[in-house]
Amino acid sequence: MTAGTAASAMNVSPNDMKYPVVHHVFFWLKNPDSKEDLAKLLAGVKTLSKIETVKELHVGVVASTEKRDVVDNSWAVSELIFFKDVAGQDTYQTHPLHLEFIKNCSHLWEKVIVYDAIKA
Amino acid sequence: MTAGTAASAMNVSPNDMKYPVVHHVFFWLKNPDSKEDLAKLLAGVKTLSKIETVKELHVGVVASTEKRDVVDNSWAVSELIFFKDVAGQDTYQTHPLHLEFIKNCSHLWEKVIVYDAIKA
Repeated sequence: MTAGTAASAMNVSPNDMKYPVVHHVFFWLKNPDSKEDLAKLLAGVKTLSKIETVKELHVGVVASTEKRDVVDNSWAVSELIFFKDVAGQDTYQTHPLHLEFIKNCSHLWEKVIVYDAIKA
Repeated sequence: MTAGTAASAMNVSPNDMKYPVVHHVFFWLKNPDSKEDLAKLLAGVKTLSKIETVKELHVGVVASTEKRDVVDNSWAVSELIFFKDVAGQDTYQTHPLHLEFIKNCSHLWEKVIVYDAIKA
């Protein structure tokens, strides 16, 4: 049985092995009611997929799950990126496309929170 | 060209299409210095992969990325789950294995934050 098959049987992603560094970013808009600002930020985040070290990019908005005390649904856009290693994330941070994104889009957000995880 | 190939060429995961609902959970330990509590919580989170609607589970700890103002590295364990749909996440919430996890492990954490996203 390959590692991938074993992982799949357990519902653990084989990407855990390939891309163990996970960069979670949540953005809060300055104008949370502006559909235009939301669209601009979503489009901006999507440009990050072109960075070579970005192995997977998932761009999201708040899902309509049950409202519970522990659920934070005050944010607007989520960016979830898988990297092969911490060096890949370092490359991303200073990559021209990332700097361009910050230049073009940072006026749109009021707050950002980042969680950087590595496979346990 | 299949959707998967197109997605891969853009570094966008094909799982965006298959598993668009993303459940991000961050846990803060009551005893952040206890390696034993950390190990127990990690083991507990890993049992969630057996729930049928959990399509991918990624379990993490804080990565050693650059310290920046926007990076929250005060948490201890991250749980990242991909679901096919919101119904899959509803099933997970009330699944016996999830309730068992909460019963066995909730004494270990002081705080939990959940972000539920859907592909934008």
